[in-house]
Amino acid sequence: MPLRSLLSRQPWLRAMLLATSLFSSAHAMTLDHIEPRSWWVGMKQSGLQLMLHGQDIGRLKARVEYPGVRLLRQQGLESPNYLVLDLEIGAEARPGTLSIELREGDRLVLSHPYPLQARAPGSAQREGFGPKDAIYLVVPDRFAKGLPAPDAGGMSEGERRELPGGRHGGNLAGMRQHLDYVAAMGFTQIWPTPLTENNGLEYSYHGYASTDLYRVDPRFGSNEDFRAFAAEARERGVGVIQDIVLNHIGARHWWMQDLPTRDWVNQWPRYTETSHFRMSVQDPYGTESDRRAFSDGWFSPNMPDLNQRQPVLANYLIQMSLWWIEYAGLSGVRTDTYSYSDKAFLARWSQRMLEEYPRLNLVGEEWSPHPAVVAYWQRGKRNHDGYVSHMPSMMDFPLHGALLASLTEPEGHDSGFTKLYEALAHDFVYADPARLVVFEGNHDTPRVIAALHGDLALYKMATAYLAMTRRIPQFFYGSEVLLSSPRERDDGAVRGDFPGGWAGDAVNAFTGQGLDARQREAQDWLRRLLNWRKGQPAIHEGRLVHYSPRQGVYVLFRQLGGRTLMLVLHKGATDAQLDIGRFPEMLKPGQAWREVMTGRQGRLAQSGDTLPLPARSAQIFELGD
Amino acid sequence: MPLRSLLSRQPWLRAMLLATSLFSSAHAMTLDHIEPRSWWVGMKQSGLQLMLHGQDIGRLKARVEYPGVRLLRQQGLESPNYLVLDLEIGAEARPGTLSIELREGDRLVLSHPYPLQARAPGSAQREGFGPKDAIYLVVPDRFAKGLPAPDAGGMSEGERRELPGGRHGGNLAGMRQHLDYVAAMGFTQIWPTPLTENNGLEYSYHGYASTDLYRVDPRFGSNEDFRAFAAEARERGVGVIQDIVLNHIGARHWWMQDLPTRDWVNQWPRYTETSHFRMSVQDPYGTESDRRAFSDGWFSPNMPDLNQRQPVLANYLIQMSLWWIEYAGLSGVRTDTYSYSDKAFLARWSQRMLEEYPRLNLVGEEWSPHPAVVAYWQRGKRNHDGYVSHMPSMMDFPLHGALLASLTEPEGHDSGFTKLYEALAHDFVYADPARLVVFEGNHDTPRVIAALHGDLALYKMATAYLAMTRRIPQFFYGSEVLLSSPRERDDGAVRGDFPGGWAGDAVNAFTGQGLDARQREAQDWLRRLLNWRKGQPAIHEGRLVHYSPRQGVYVLFRQLGGRTLMLVLHKGATDAQLDIGRFPEMLKPGQAWREVMTGRQGRLAQSGDTLPLPARSAQIFELGD
Repeated sequence: MPLRSLLSRQPWLRAMLLATSLFSSAHAMTLDHIEPRSWWVGMKQSGLQLMLHGQDIGRLKARVEYPGVRLLRQQGLESPNYLVLDLEIGAEARPGTLSIELREGDRLVLSHPYPLQARAPGSAQREGFGPKDAIYLVVPDRFAKGLPAPDAGGMSEGERRELPGGRHGGNLAGMRQHLDYVAAMGFTQIWPTPLTENNGLEYSYHGYASTDLYRVDPRFGSNEDFRAFAAEARERGVGVIQDIVLNHIGARHWWMQDLPTRDWVNQWPRYTETSHFRMSVQDPYGTESDRRAFSDGWFSPNMPDLNQRQPVLANYLIQMSLWWIEYAGLSGVRTDTYSYSDKAFLARWSQRMLEEYPRLNLVGEEWSPHPAVVAYWQRGKRNHDGYVSHMPSMMDFPLHGALLASLTEPEGHDSGFTKLYEALAHDFVYADPARLVVFEGNHDTPRVIAALHGDLALYKMATAYLAMTRRIPQFFYGSEVLLSSPRERDDGAVRGDFPGGWAGDAVNAFTGQGLDARQREAQDWLRRLLNWRKGQPAIHEGRLVHYSPRQGVYVLFRQLGGRTLMLVLHKGATDAQLDIGRFPEMLKPGQAWREVMTGRQGRLAQSGDTLPLPARSAQIFELGD
Repeated sequence: MPLRSLLSRQPWLRAMLLATSLFSSAHAMTLDHIEPRSWWVGMKQSGLQLMLHGQDIGRLKARVEYPGVRLLRQQGLESPNYLVLDLEIGAEARPGTLSIELREGDRLVLSHPYPLQARAPGSAQREGFGPKDAIYLVVPDRFAKGLPAPDAGGMSEGERRELPGGRHGGNLAGMRQHLDYVAAMGFTQIWPTPLTENNGLEYSYHGYASTDLYRVDPRFGSNEDFRAFAAEARERGVGVIQDIVLNHIGARHWWMQDLPTRDWVNQWPRYTETSHFRMSVQDPYGTESDRRAFSDGWFSPNMPDLNQRQPVLANYLIQMSLWWIEYAGLSGVRTDTYSYSDKAFLARWSQRMLEEYPRLNLVGEEWSPHPAVVAYWQRGKRNHDGYVSHMPSMMDFPLHGALLASLTEPEGHDSGFTKLYEALAHDFVYADPARLVVFEGNHDTPRVIAALHGDLALYKMATAYLAMTRRIPQFFYGSEVLLSSPRERDDGAVRGDFPGGWAGDAVNAFTGQGLDARQREAQDWLRRLLNWRKGQPAIHEGRLVHYSPRQGVYVLFRQLGGRTLMLVLHKGATDAQLDIGRFPEMLKPGQAWREVMTGRQGRLAQSGDTLPLPARSAQIFELGD
């Protein structure tokens, strides 16, 4: 048996599996899994590869009878308990239920009804999230516990809100109940960290160790709950971005009890963690062993590393991603630990997503401070090694880091606002900088208010910059009410419970009840900023012009048609005046101005005028004729 | 008069000129300057543009009679005291002296003999410095005072060795006398900071404020002394790299008394220093006013900023550079403050240098920590804005910074050796990384031993890395005997006198007399390292392979043919063993090894072997078959 021989050569894997009681006993022949769970007619690619799993199913012979559908091929895998069927869904196929019959010789052993559905109108041409949007990232377990809570469905780890790494009970019902809050704040996209089943024994709340890639974790709700959540969000003008992990699964994923093939997960003589040296991908001086140490090493012992070079697995991951996009009506995908997967697979995956959904957005996580590294992965970049990616977007870690550094460092030749200016000037290395996602923080970084030393003025500068720069801005739930954390990594503290998400919470950030004055000010600031931003095509698609910083003042313009917006960040501790003569290309004598956040108005003199420059301020000027 | 009207609109310039007594009184008509001072037959481009300067010379009519030479055009400039002659030196012209006659009507006012020389054999095809070389950077005023000292020739600032910013009396005679030391240390190139006349009233020793671009400062010696120095250096296998400044001149340059044209230097309503925001050149969001603030702002009040868009000036600077290359037999040029000059001019300048000397090397100074910025200026880079440069080499500030940071920071996800590894992995952004010049320090940085907290073990790691990496390495005079400085910028301290360069010095680093044990060890280490490097084609032209660092160990290989070299840097404080299994692509079981610096030898076992890893060490292994 492949698994057994595998385990004999992988003592650490065996020990782990034993320790977590993953061995299932033999059982009667049933169809335990068929994935994808359903499919659609009218997809661009007609191919559909079904994975069937059940005791000894590999020796059965499949037959499919349905108008327009052909069974092209069937194959067993190394484990006898898998059967892989390649179907062709012809253009003439209509929605309905096709029957998959499995026979042993002439005996019909099993017949399974398989749904072929109609696609939602406009599905293929849906528009993904983009520069007009603002994204709200939530950790579902930590956002809100809606009642009644769903049936936990026999999941291993129960709710223990007192543990920083435990499950706190947040769920889809809570997210649904607070969609009005999300929309009222001005967010137009919501990105929940992964919702699929994570049936680990402990530390399962984060969702990045999936044990069933086609099932929403029952502690969050059902697949239908997720679909309903997405539909209700859309009704409020909020798109849903699903967090998909291609790189790894959870150690208690059912595959790990019965590996389809020996090479399904990346195997090492002993447990080997990824090197995290992501530049091994681009390094012109790197070696195969270093590249393998990065991409085939495991993220953690609880996260078996998938081998996307395995062709059946590659198809599986592509179809799984398409399935959720179509099923839930997503506006995009956020791809976790992007560069850790096989790069040839990633190119194919992103190409397939865009082939089915040409206007969808996909954003990859590449946690590097280097623009040249992030740029490598974005669609349209001409790479030194000929690598062609199709990812429309990547997370902009370099700009994130530069923003926080620029606000907290003293001004200098290579520090302070110089960093922010130079980070943005690096946009020439990107194929499409406007589609990068920049953020104040996420579930893996310290809370922004902690990074900014608790300074509300700096919070305003950071958020105003995110709202105005040439990017898609993303905010982490609770940043708007200054949820804090240690400055060193502390996941449990960073992913704190959103105040008011639990019955009995003393503070309720949804209603404002119990927030202190600073929290109210921060929340109000962001709400007004993002709602104002919605109506600013100069930000969504206008050109950007900025000036090199001087004396702790950084100025950036957005312009479209006759509309000019001007962001002025001032770190200085005293009130001053900004000489408009420094901006000859962008300001005209006699122009009327209005500062967005205060409503203050004025008109530029014919020459030698200034704009107000309050101490430690973020101002946004709308400039008229 | 143009100068007068100019001064009336530039009060700060007038004040400066008055303060420094630059006004000359009217004098009888003479030819005060004719530049270039001489030229050669057989240059690739036949054009030669002569600038003549003398009271009212602009109204004279020139005639040139010489076989093969034609006067194509003559032009006056805004000042009446300039005459510009465009000559064509035909292929048939022979060496000799041509006569330039200047007439007023029919009256011959002046006749000037102008030398047309033969070029040295192989001049055009000379090979510039490259990866096989090691460069020694000296500040001539601070290296050695050779006796007899030349006649200071009425220069303004005298010798005051006790002043950190004063002239200390170093000269070309001193450099000549110590060429044996330079060669014995293993250096094969010497780069002196600028030697041309700097007749400022004070702070003139550094040489970057030239008052005569065609004359060696008499305190250093004569033009002939420089030529003889270069010839003697060549005899010892040491090439000379001249430091040329295209961006600015000294405020007491003779042009400033009588500006050829109003636009000869970049003019501002009041004194305006360069913004130093070099990324304004690449910035896709930048403005013309910001680009101008960077490239047209002045480096200092004592350094008028040249306007290289002025066509006569552009020709002047190109010919001046060619003149020194041909005159002194240079192996290359180091171009100061490279990006501060007009970028279209820089492209033309570098193109013209390479047109005349296709194998010469030119290295530009671009003091940026960003590879994408440095890469922009190197020949062969396909730039986002279509800019085409012809510079074969640039100074590698990013790798310099990464090297020092990597040695002094604790190891971490983004720190320590990770920085060094990632900096080198960035080589994919360069068109020709092997021709970049990397350095441990220069006249503008803290002394390397200060940057490394006085740690001799780190000094060995830094120098071993420079010797082994895929670059042209450069060392600052005195680093080999651990000359130190504050860690904050302090030019006078950084450019300390080389011990033994002055009669009566208590310590003599040339002979070793009076050096302490650490200094001897450092000097001996570098001498052996660089002399060994001379015979290593695997370093000069071999491929580089490196591995991501682990546990404070960074390993880099060079390989050519059957020859493999292995650099092992170990920051750890305890002796350890290096598992060779980590380098499957580069090490073979049973291979013989020899550590270059200790002579220690051994042979790898057939499997599972290790190499010695002494605490805090830099080792270089030669690997045999």
